[in-house]
Amino acid sequence: MTLKTPEKSTRRYGKAEGTDYQSPEVWSKVTGKAVYGIDHAMPGMLHGKILRSPYPHARIKKVDTTAAEALPGVRAVLTGTELESKPFGIAVEDELPLAVDKVRYIGDEVAAVAAVDLQTAERAIKAIKVEYEELPAVYDPAEALQEGAPQLHDNFPGNVAWERELERGSSSAAFAGADVVVEESFTIPAIHPAYLEPISCIAVDDPYTGITLHTALQSPDAVRKIVAGALNYPLSKVHVNGPVMGGGFGGRVYGNLKVYILSAMLAIKSGRPVKIQLTREEEFTAGRPMIAAAIKMKMAVKSDGTILGREADIITDNGAYSGQAPWVSKTLSERNDSVYRIPGIKTRVRLAYTNKIPTGQYRAYGNQVANFATESLIDMAAKKLGLDPLEMRLKNCVREGDITVHGLQVGKCGLSECLQAAAREIGWDHKKAGHGYGLSVAIHANGSLVFDKNFRGASALARLELDGRITLFTGEQDYGQGTHGAFAQIAAKALDVRPAQITVESKETKTAPFSTGALAMRQTTVGGKAIQLAAEDLREKIFKAAAELTGEPVTMKNSVLNTMSGRTLELGEIAYHYHNNTSGLNLTGEGKFVPEESDYDESGYGNISVAYSFAAHAVELELDKTTGAITVNRLVAAHDSGRIVNHLTARGQVYGGVAQGIGMSCFEGCLFDEGRMANATLADYKIPTALDLPEIDPLFIEIEDPVGPYGSKGLGEIVMVPVIGAVANAAADAAGVRITDLPLTAEKIYQAMAGWECEQ
Amino acid sequence: MTLKTPEKSTRRYGKAEGTDYQSPEVWSKVTGKAVYGIDHAMPGMLHGKILRSPYPHARIKKVDTTAAEALPGVRAVLTGTELESKPFGIAVEDELPLAVDKVRYIGDEVAAVAAVDLQTAERAIKAIKVEYEELPAVYDPAEALQEGAPQLHDNFPGNVAWERELERGSSSAAFAGADVVVEESFTIPAIHPAYLEPISCIAVDDPYTGITLHTALQSPDAVRKIVAGALNYPLSKVHVNGPVMGGGFGGRVYGNLKVYILSAMLAIKSGRPVKIQLTREEEFTAGRPMIAAAIKMKMAVKSDGTILGREADIITDNGAYSGQAPWVSKTLSERNDSVYRIPGIKTRVRLAYTNKIPTGQYRAYGNQVANFATESLIDMAAKKLGLDPLEMRLKNCVREGDITVHGLQVGKCGLSECLQAAAREIGWDHKKAGHGYGLSVAIHANGSLVFDKNFRGASALARLELDGRITLFTGEQDYGQGTHGAFAQIAAKALDVRPAQITVESKETKTAPFSTGALAMRQTTVGGKAIQLAAEDLREKIFKAAAELTGEPVTMKNSVLNTMSGRTLELGEIAYHYHNNTSGLNLTGEGKFVPEESDYDESGYGNISVAYSFAAHAVELELDKTTGAITVNRLVAAHDSGRIVNHLTARGQVYGGVAQGIGMSCFEGCLFDEGRMANATLADYKIPTALDLPEIDPLFIEIEDPVGPYGSKGLGEIVMVPVIGAVANAAADAAGVRITDLPLTAEKIYQAMAGWECEQ
Repeated sequence: MTLKTPEKSTRRYGKAEGTDYQSPEVWSKVTGKAVYGIDHAMPGMLHGKILRSPYPHARIKKVDTTAAEALPGVRAVLTGTELESKPFGIAVEDELPLAVDKVRYIGDEVAAVAAVDLQTAERAIKAIKVEYEELPAVYDPAEALQEGAPQLHDNFPGNVAWERELERGSSSAAFAGADVVVEESFTIPAIHPAYLEPISCIAVDDPYTGITLHTALQSPDAVRKIVAGALNYPLSKVHVNGPVMGGGFGGRVYGNLKVYILSAMLAIKSGRPVKIQLTREEEFTAGRPMIAAAIKMKMAVKSDGTILGREADIITDNGAYSGQAPWVSKTLSERNDSVYRIPGIKTRVRLAYTNKIPTGQYRAYGNQVANFATESLIDMAAKKLGLDPLEMRLKNCVREGDITVHGLQVGKCGLSECLQAAAREIGWDHKKAGHGYGLSVAIHANGSLVFDKNFRGASALARLELDGRITLFTGEQDYGQGTHGAFAQIAAKALDVRPAQITVESKETKTAPFSTGALAMRQTTVGGKAIQLAAEDLREKIFKAAAELTGEPVTMKNSVLNTMSGRTLELGEIAYHYHNNTSGLNLTGEGKFVPEESDYDESGYGNISVAYSFAAHAVELELDKTTGAITVNRLVAAHDSGRIVNHLTARGQVYGGVAQGIGMSCFEGCLFDEGRMANATLADYKIPTALDLPEIDPLFIEIEDPVGPYGSKGLGEIVMVPVIGAVANAAADAAGVRITDLPLTAEKIYQAMAGWECEQ
Repeated sequence: MTLKTPEKSTRRYGKAEGTDYQSPEVWSKVTGKAVYGIDHAMPGMLHGKILRSPYPHARIKKVDTTAAEALPGVRAVLTGTELESKPFGIAVEDELPLAVDKVRYIGDEVAAVAAVDLQTAERAIKAIKVEYEELPAVYDPAEALQEGAPQLHDNFPGNVAWERELERGSSSAAFAGADVVVEESFTIPAIHPAYLEPISCIAVDDPYTGITLHTALQSPDAVRKIVAGALNYPLSKVHVNGPVMGGGFGGRVYGNLKVYILSAMLAIKSGRPVKIQLTREEEFTAGRPMIAAAIKMKMAVKSDGTILGREADIITDNGAYSGQAPWVSKTLSERNDSVYRIPGIKTRVRLAYTNKIPTGQYRAYGNQVANFATESLIDMAAKKLGLDPLEMRLKNCVREGDITVHGLQVGKCGLSECLQAAAREIGWDHKKAGHGYGLSVAIHANGSLVFDKNFRGASALARLELDGRITLFTGEQDYGQGTHGAFAQIAAKALDVRPAQITVESKETKTAPFSTGALAMRQTTVGGKAIQLAAEDLREKIFKAAAELTGEPVTMKNSVLNTMSGRTLELGEIAYHYHNNTSGLNLTGEGKFVPEESDYDESGYGNISVAYSFAAHAVELELDKTTGAITVNRLVAAHDSGRIVNHLTARGQVYGGVAQGIGMSCFEGCLFDEGRMANATLADYKIPTALDLPEIDPLFIEIEDPVGPYGSKGLGEIVMVPVIGAVANAAADAAGVRITDLPLTAEKIYQAMAGWECEQ
């Protein structure tokens, strides 16, 4: 694997460590000291287990917990009937903590127990007798939407969880005036984030401070709000303390709400801390994979390659309950439209309830799902028109100053440069004969402003400690992506100190500022900007305190303050001065990044993010024509994420995101058999290993964007997006036929080349 | 037990709950949910044990840890030689984490181990071979001060840990012009705080955030500073998280520093969390009891009872290491002088090293030790002059506006009222024949300003939560005395909300404001004032935010804001408004109580506290002349602690403090046999049970003092002080002879009545 260090990346954040700064935060992980959620335990803790439905769709006639409650060591048993809960949810309130009238998927939560050990809890679960009456089930989302299909929720008639029809610009005219129309149907299976550490939670109920959830989350503040609602607790009586997080990839934004709510309810009922930890099988059968999608898409193109319009009819598979699926469906159905200059679009998207695992989200929020369709069509159009796919993309891709079809205002934009760099680096102009080459592009938002009309941005605190060190308080979570190291660098730059002088705190909602969460690629741009502002505010306060102490104006260099008359002061002296004068307070800078109101309307048209990142990936692969197997040899990932704060972690993000993109392209997908997940183990659900990966070459086109801290933008989600389209296009290039349902297995390619019908 | 509710105590703090507000903070204790330090555990935690010296004084020739290190399950072994530590200490730096050249008491820390379980740790301790060369030892402090006594520390020649000679006013003239001089020698043994929960600590070393000590302390900030120094860590890399505290009584101000330092060092060496928990025997043999004292005191009095002067020669017993003993010796030697108008004093006090358990402090910091001497002398003088002890006290006791012999400026002062009330209530004017009656008075500071010349006062934060509740952040610890409930009441009053709407947070030094600690009876007066100021600041900020939101001036009543035009707003609305406008920050009030500089000089003369509390106790007891046993029937405790914030907890403080005073008067004391504590169990070290206690009648003389919050002052330490003198005087009254060495056992009284020499 070649590590490219781009020419422009010489700017240093902080001192000495430069843009390859290694935060000591990772040391606890590499030394094995880190306490992850699954390693965590508390004195007096009980173990919780959940009884799950064995049926995809059934009426609950009776739940008898007598035998379970009589088991020695059982401390609490919960059933849906006794809870009298009101429905909760993320985008739509369609879930109860435990099923009451009926179950809707194999894995649906029916009862929960807490016992003194796991074995007793498991025995208790088995001792609960449930009488079911089986109901007809529906598994295919298209079927679910048809008249007469079994209905999952009374208040969602026709199994429509969410739908949207949207037309912007003149789509019909576009197709009328097109030289070429390309059209295809694509299917993408549900993809599980497959984080290394299964979700776990220890809930502690204290009569004074309330419920504390010890669980690792990307968005603790979002979760505590939902949990407080489900428990009917005041918000300030629900806290989240985050142990170290063993991966998230979007799957831990909301994690598994049932786990948190049920562990809290069991803790309240038993009066003891309760830990629920999902098994890997539970993760696969009752976790929250990204929605599967069927995308029918067509594109109208002029003979010179100019895109005139695109239409899509999309059905996404919600599973039994909604989670974030409506929001993911929305992003999936529109984000890709903004990477090109498309005058008109027309989209219908329907999210259908089925009797399968409920769904959630995954790194890139569906943008990578649509990338498969859009980028395939671009290559199909180019092929039909005899154009170079690179040229066709360069002709259409958005540029600084553009307002896209959905109203996104394109600021600093290095998309064309990314395309050229990726193509140049992969050897687009001197392709190796017999190898397949593919390109793909992406745009992704840096923090969406549309989640909560009243809230946007981020805040942070920067506190000067008595020993002259600095502590940053942020609600932004570092779950391995390196945010906190970058924050230390940003604050170090603002304060002119070394990043190693800075500690970042974010683990407890009780003391961290509120944060929207580690999602929507907002952390560096939005959270990092708040850090910069907090550090700058602290710097001003330090100057003020120093001037007050010395009676002179001061300057600061390398952590040392200098007065006009040549006196030097350490930061610790300023801290003590302030501490003594305030009887114990710390000098603390406040950072408030409050983005301006954007002008998006009710239909979602408008500038829904503070900034946008761009990427172009180029893939070179080989195809074994005797088996249909593809071997991706090399992937060049060219990214405009503005100025890169830390090249070490940025490269890490690219490697990880590309790996997951390769997984989704070539290997992954939840398989179902009559509603039961058929590959519910990591032996059967194949995520790529290092040996499955190509040489990955990250290239950073560092165009400073003034919005984020020191010109930087987000990278974490967009890294995954173009992989899908680029691999699909390279495979089609090599095979001469195009596979339209993921993953691109050898069987499918072989059969397609042989002219057989693909098995779905 | 009669619970008196004084007439004046009708003012209500907050709404509804009044001055008997019960904070829900105690519910976790009464429901058994509270996790005390000894209950606390962490995943992967090792157990630490300390190898202690079996000799009172010996040279360490060799420490061989080979066998211990070879034991399976042993993860770390530490010896003094390997540590290369510099000495640490509280008042004097005379301790090392582990002994290096020699041991100085039976229990001295020689080596420490961490192992996977307690049994292995204990085996490892036994497997360490230490070669000692015994040295001559000295146990009696007076002997220790004599020429030729065995020397404990090279850098403290003559075994003098600390000494002071002080003369204020003209003492010689006083004695020259006296009508009567009374003189006596008193001895008081070392008293162990005997908190219910032995000290424990779990230390966790994280490569990023540093060392976190999970241990319950009265002054976490003081301890982390010393631990950081001993570990050579930056201060901001040492944190204390406080579990629930099972009692402290002064003994947990600094707790047991060796436990914290050694658990941290073992955690660093092993790379795992390490818990050290003292056994009760270790508490008694290596804990930190209050210094024993021998007080030779004389008093010069005019024939009308006016005190002219008092001289004292005091020797206090430091044990092997100093702890706070120099400071306790200082308070012991002077605080009592300020309860009366004494024109001149002369004091010599010497703190002597002996080969016994190192000493610390106990509720009232030695003030109660001296009370025994001073108040005995008052009664002796009154008897000699044929005066009523009540009249003699009333004639001499300090009053508002006085400046005492040590420069204390007496503000609001209800001492005379306390005396009259206590005497009236006990039936001073119609004593029961054959019963013994005694009086005693006390003054105690409300936060000493002399610990750190640069720091005084306290600070606090009051944060408005999104649900309209309020969280107070304070460094002041509630270890059962009810401080946090009182803080909620104070803030509730300032904000016009109910106390139950308020949660007080203080457990983590990482987020709590710095605090001097739960000591020197400073919490209500100093810490509470900071709470009041924080709440008032928050109130102003709420008004400002509300005016900004509504465009109108607002008023607040019962948690609801009202505008001029009749609009009402909940506090939560204001919180959200601020939250949204600052991208996630909370509206937070800052309270800084910065007491004015006082004018105390190098000799300690001056006004060393922001306020003073006063007390007078009256005792009625019966003496069984056939055995010498006394039965204290009733104790009336009259207190001027200003306005009482919470009568429920104030009465609790009186009951507890009086119980401990009864214990010290009648039962308690560390006994030594050649340096070995002879009563090192709770079976042998007799603390009083409920059956040993008299009827206790608290009386509060509520004279508002403008310094503290809403006129209130401290109570927690002074409650213990007058008990000793009052019981001693009542016993002397009943027996006709006076016992001058504590405790007042039946044997001593019987022997004294029989004219025998008391055994010491």
